[in-house]
Amino acid sequence: MRVGVPAESRPAERRVAGLPETVTTLVGAGLTVDVQAGAGAHAHASDAAYRAAGANVVPDHPAGRCEVLVSVQPPTPEQAARLREGDITISFLQPAAEPELVEVLKANGVTSFSLDLLPRVTRAQSADALSSQALVAGYRAVIEATRRLPKFLPMFTTAAGTVPPAKVLVLGAGVAGLQAIATARRLGAVVEAYDVRAAAKEEVRSLGAKFLELGLETQGGVYAQAQSEEFLERQRELIAERVAASDVVITTAAVPGRTAPVLVTTDMLKAMAPGSVVVDLAAETGGNVAASQPGEDTWIGEVLVVGARNMPSTMPVHASRLYARNVANLLLMMTADGRVEPDLDDEVLAGCCLTHRGELRRELP
Amino acid sequence: MRVGVPAESRPAERRVAGLPETVTTLVGAGLTVDVQAGAGAHAHASDAAYRAAGANVVPDHPAGRCEVLVSVQPPTPEQAARLREGDITISFLQPAAEPELVEVLKANGVTSFSLDLLPRVTRAQSADALSSQALVAGYRAVIEATRRLPKFLPMFTTAAGTVPPAKVLVLGAGVAGLQAIATARRLGAVVEAYDVRAAAKEEVRSLGAKFLELGLETQGGVYAQAQSEEFLERQRELIAERVAASDVVITTAAVPGRTAPVLVTTDMLKAMAPGSVVVDLAAETGGNVAASQPGEDTWIGEVLVVGARNMPSTMPVHASRLYARNVANLLLMMTADGRVEPDLDDEVLAGCCLTHRGELRRELP
Repeated sequence: MRVGVPAESRPAERRVAGLPETVTTLVGAGLTVDVQAGAGAHAHASDAAYRAAGANVVPDHPAGRCEVLVSVQPPTPEQAARLREGDITISFLQPAAEPELVEVLKANGVTSFSLDLLPRVTRAQSADALSSQALVAGYRAVIEATRRLPKFLPMFTTAAGTVPPAKVLVLGAGVAGLQAIATARRLGAVVEAYDVRAAAKEEVRSLGAKFLELGLETQGGVYAQAQSEEFLERQRELIAERVAASDVVITTAAVPGRTAPVLVTTDMLKAMAPGSVVVDLAAETGGNVAASQPGEDTWIGEVLVVGARNMPSTMPVHASRLYARNVANLLLMMTADGRVEPDLDDEVLAGCCLTHRGELRRELP
Repeated sequence: MRVGVPAESRPAERRVAGLPETVTTLVGAGLTVDVQAGAGAHAHASDAAYRAAGANVVPDHPAGRCEVLVSVQPPTPEQAARLREGDITISFLQPAAEPELVEVLKANGVTSFSLDLLPRVTRAQSADALSSQALVAGYRAVIEATRRLPKFLPMFTTAAGTVPPAKVLVLGAGVAGLQAIATARRLGAVVEAYDVRAAAKEEVRSLGAKFLELGLETQGGVYAQAQSEEFLERQRELIAERVAASDVVITTAAVPGRTAPVLVTTDMLKAMAPGSVVVDLAAETGGNVAASQPGEDTWIGEVLVVGARNMPSTMPVHASRLYARNVANLLLMMTADGRVEPDLDDEVLAGCCLTHRGELRRELP
């Protein structure tokens, strides 16, 4: 069976879903791989390198000419319309944002898998593209903040006196947040982090950062709703206080398919020292920071707010390497003897299957 | 006596020679300080903060209205023409590049000090602005390389396999080179460094980097010239080999007032892996890298060459803090009882004095 890897056609997407190393893996599993010419350009993988790894380099988008289409961004509805009954496609389908595409996939009888929906079980980890790309985003968030900060991150002791280390606050301690903490710590910053999940405390501390606590643990015996209001009020106060004390704030409280909560208000930004930098990794899903716009730098007074847009795509070689391995691993879970035949009784495959045989298998939000 | 701090007027200069903290120091030494309105804008020091520290905020460039003019970039010849006999000025005068300015300073009887010329003796360290700004440049070189590199610097071990650490080569192990090594090491890169001075070996190694050696130590008994040719040939070979093996190359072999040696040729760039990044800190003085242009990113095939231009100015808060302290320390060496009266028998002051009482005290190259 034939696997197709297109050149990504959505704006500003620089990753690719297959690299020469994963071509070798898939060919080794008995599959044929077609790669669209130029697909690896941004990831610095040449057509010649794909050929050397055993791929056919084809001139056009491979939709409709392969049994399995793998991509980073979802195919456009027009590309999806070329897929045939029983064809398989794997990408970040982002079904909530792509109702027209979902209709086409369903109508054409395509079996579609969305990496957004991959169950977070141990067996699925090697295919967990949300995590691998969040790792890239968390690292890049610190690099993007550092290059805009008019100060050092590390402490320096020079003959002309000492420069103190930068103070970095990370809101949200999932994969991206933890990687932001680790990277800021590597660069010598003093790091604090907050997450609504108290369980994140140990991970944050193990990276050498301080975990902020609301100090509400002992408040039992009140109505749930009242506690929730007190909780939110205390959270706002704590974040406001720590934002004001920070040189860099990185927000990572994004939930795929849902609107991100606003954690940092314009008033909080105005209380920061001039020259401070805020990177909002959730800017594309509504934003954790009041002023952020995806892909834009916005000055609020003398504070710079950086709205992230497809952060993993800013580092296409390694982001593609991790993504391509994730996709290959998912594909191998449904491949035997050179044939891709997904067993939808398998919890991993069932969990991320969006459409199959004309049916929508997941409720859209 | 009155010290003037202008808003820097040369293009793209974002630093400032005085900050509120150094105003406090100078006022404490009995001096009056005039700061041009907006001088601290890029360094996020407001006029109000200068006033609170004891400065007068004045509307115009203070040349001609103060006894001591301190700046980062040298005054323009027009500004210098307003200085009066006996006035003092301190900046990076870069006399070799500013013959017209030097003429004006001499003709007007200005006592000018150039931080370029500061003797590298222990007592001068607290005023050593070349070193403090090289520290900033070395740090920024790594940040600028990292943000352009399509790969991680650190190694990552993920569920989808391992990503190896980036390989960084630093050519020149002076202050900037050592800081580049330290910063790349912080970020988890594998670092190699080379310097013609074998004495740099221990410093390089103490930062966790490998020091490259030519292996010519035992070649005694030949003509000096022949050895020099053998030395240069072996150096070229070694650099070519290590450049080809690196993801990032940072060149720092700049000597103020002299043309930088070309260390990395176009052929060497072409042998690097696609997506590699080369930062040339010496781009403004001729360049250590064949293709580099100051202030420009240049693609040589799939290798990105970054020509640095005033790198310290990209981090104006901390670059200004170190610079302003350097200037204040030099000024305090010539100040007693509220009067600035440089003793030109002092080796530090004599060493960096360029013009005095109508005489040029240093030969220009």
